[in-house]
Amino acid sequence: MTSPLEELAVRLRGFAQARDWERFHTPKNLAMALAGEVGELVAEFQWLADAERLDDEAMARVRAELGDVTGYLVRLADVLGVDLVRAANDKLDESERRYDPELYRGSARKAPPLR
Amino acid sequence: MTSPLEELAVRLRGFAQARDWERFHTPKNLAMALAGEVGELVAEFQWLADAERLDDEAMARVRAELGDVTGYLVRLADVLGVDLVRAANDKLDESERRYDPELYRGSARKAPPLR
Amino acid sequence: MTSPLEELAVRLRGFAQARDWERFHTPKNLAMALAGEVGELVAEFQWLADAERLDDEAMARVRAELGDVTGYLVRLADVLGVDLVRAANDKLDESERRYDPELYRGSARKAPPLR
Amino acid sequence: MTSPLEELAVRLRGFAQARDWERFHTPKNLAMALAGEVGELVAEFQWLADAERLDDEAMARVRAELGDVTGYLVRLADVLGVDLVRAANDKLDESERRYDPELYRGSARKAPPLR
Repeated sequence: MTSPLEELAVRLRGFAQARDWERFHTPKNLAMALAGEVGELVAEFQWLADAERLDDEAMARVRAELGDVTGYLVRLADVLGVDLVRAANDKLDESERRYDPELYRGSARKAPPLR
Repeated sequence: MTSPLEELAVRLRGFAQARDWERFHTPKNLAMALAGEVGELVAEFQWLADAERLDDEAMARVRAELGDVTGYLVRLADVLGVDLVRAANDKLDESERRYDPELYRGSARKAPPLR
Repeated sequence: MTSPLEELAVRLRGFAQARDWERFHTPKNLAMALAGEVGELVAEFQWLADAERLDDEAMARVRAELGDVTGYLVRLADVLGVDLVRAANDKLDESERRYDPELYRGSARKAPPLR
Repeated sequence: MTSPLEELAVRLRGFAQARDWERFHTPKNLAMALAGEVGELVAEFQWLADAERLDDEAMARVRAELGDVTGYLVRLADVLGVDLVRAANDKLDESERRYDPELYRGSARKAPPLR
């Protein structure tokens, strides 16, 4: 059975094929498109105080930006043949080994890389 | 039934809670962390020619970066209460209306925003 | 008389020429390199509270990142033939017209674009 | 004598002061604003082929984006008390030691960090 995330990847692939846009969707170009969308996302938060919440209008824009970011990320992973959820879980396995819960409780300092 | 993506969100939430890191995980800070990881991802492609493929070593780094990007994106969406796949599908609905397949076939030009 | 910024542009040009790296220094690739360095810069601030200051070690890293960002920005502008200071002053002229000091005093809201 | 870059820093400082925006101009927020502008810059190049040139309209947008990027970079450096040109020259000194012209001629591979 396919997950909603896999269905999204298939839908994005069809969207690109229907417009003959696959020539533009190189990993390099998709990584740039992702960076552009993340830039727009970050810009929504830039003047916000730490504890400040987004108003409804900004929240709607942020949701749309998150949709754009997700779209390009899923498309990039599809083109590269990477399973995003598996890659994220692998990195989280690593973070669990690097960041001992007691040692790093409430601390934002960086752990040394695993050897 | 929960999807692998939802399971990842739950796992990331538990990871932050176990370390008392929720105070750091404001939407603003998570958006910055996402931007930082996307910067590392983009850097992997910067000197590559368009048609050039990543070698195995670079591909392993890109997969790890994609894992980091996915982790922060899923965590940010969880904190904001946004369904990423739904947000992406909503944007894709919009793109299908904006980009007529015949009119934009093989073209990289931008469509005007929907009214 | 050349300014220190112009001297830097000339020095960066010579650095690229001496290594036959001009083929890599397309505007597209330099924009990506700039994005990568800005990602590293942002990452230095991501877990910092609003009022929190960088410690000496982080400050040294930030200064080095600012050096990298400046280097790629100046190199990109040189390749494109853009005068950065003039471009910034032109945008500031525009911002002065868009943001009336009384109307926007202490406010982070965005002004409508100029017509 | 002040350079055009120093004059720009002074002008940006006055612009912020006149609007009581210094409270928003923390290093963290300015780094985010810089990232947002660099995202817009990168987006101008994302679907361009390697050898492809920007048309006049895109070039005008790129020049404006470079102005925005420069503005936030100069403002951030001013707030942190960093001399951008000196920081860039320091990094270039380092790159000259890391990248031997003969050894890295025409090569995009990364040198090991200096010890």
